[in-house]
Amino acid sequence: MTATVATLTLPGEAQDLLFREARTANAFTDEPVTDDQLRAVHDLVKWGPTAMNSQPLRVLYVRGQDAKNRLAPHLAEGNRAKTLAAPVTAILSADTDFHEHLATTFPHFPGAKAAFADDAKRTEAARTNALLQAGYFIIGVRAAGLAAGPMSGFDREGVRREFLADTNHQPLVIVNIGHPDHSGTHPRNPRLDYSEVVRTV
Amino acid sequence: MTATVATLTLPGEAQDLLFREARTANAFTDEPVTDDQLRAVHDLVKWGPTAMNSQPLRVLYVRGQDAKNRLAPHLAEGNRAKTLAAPVTAILSADTDFHEHLATTFPHFPGAKAAFADDAKRTEAARTNALLQAGYFIIGVRAAGLAAGPMSGFDREGVRREFLADTNHQPLVIVNIGHPDHSGTHPRNPRLDYSEVVRTV
Repeated sequence: MTATVATLTLPGEAQDLLFREARTANAFTDEPVTDDQLRAVHDLVKWGPTAMNSQPLRVLYVRGQDAKNRLAPHLAEGNRAKTLAAPVTAILSADTDFHEHLATTFPHFPGAKAAFADDAKRTEAARTNALLQAGYFIIGVRAAGLAAGPMSGFDREGVRREFLADTNHQPLVIVNIGHPDHSGTHPRNPRLDYSEVVRTV
Repeated sequence: MTATVATLTLPGEAQDLLFREARTANAFTDEPVTDDQLRAVHDLVKWGPTAMNSQPLRVLYVRGQDAKNRLAPHLAEGNRAKTLAAPVTAILSADTDFHEHLATTFPHFPGAKAAFADDAKRTEAARTNALLQAGYFIIGVRAAGLAAGPMSGFDREGVRREFLADTNHQPLVIVNIGHPDHSGTHPRNPRLDYSEVVRTV
């Protein structure tokens, strides 16, 4: 596709796998996604950095047809058929109770939990860091040789009530996962120019 | 370090470079970060997916000592010295005017801009997608063989007024970038168990 960026340390084939040839998938083949693959994605992306090692991302994999049928009504209409057909769908959420884990995940700073006593500040930190982790997660799905189909078109409160009512998790992004059927892939849309994105002072 | 995850398509050395051996850097060597490297990071991570190809992430690289001195007072005290010493510091922001680009970046859907007419909904979409892109950006810095030091401890409104007053950009995360001096790297903190992060229905 585009020329390999020689300035990078990451080999060109890995650049292609993760960014350049990877595409958002809207259709998938029948080839299954194994639990081993999903665990391997986690075992890789768990190392991605978060503020105070807070790790607020939570993943609910929707696999069964009954569960898919519970999810579909909460999706934007254009996202329903492809989600019902995907081998597995991940609901990515922010755990606003992440601070309960800080005594073990950030042990050298005993004041970490107290630093997040304020609900609004903690919710903001949960969302910010879980979205960074959602970025790592999408890259991790691609690292497993799978395609991701991230979606933001869904009713957050509906999904929360349906699947996360027993938690303090706030859904952020939903991601279909499988082996891509590229007949369902749209032509690649243009990216902004460097000068539209980057400035230097 | 940890064993390579054989289930993944991404080669083990690339897994190490991006996730397993990469570490958040708190100190850097004198080796410079070139503009070519920063452009290469952009040319890779620009391909990461965003909702409706919205690409709301904006990057302001703070390089000069005068600009660093303007940034320092807005950082949490523990983030100041390392930021002043880093070869370059990136202020990652969400452009809440991203919808102005949709006619060119999402051309097959002429209604895209109008779909984001609501300010609150557009701001939320800008933040969500820019944070996903911030995740890709951190991976991209590592792909360039550099270390990232992401920070959320700063005064968002202060940084906005100081550097982004002529824009509708909202600062999200600040990232120091350079060649790591591992004498400043903390011991790795524990990650949550799979069962604490992942559930399946």
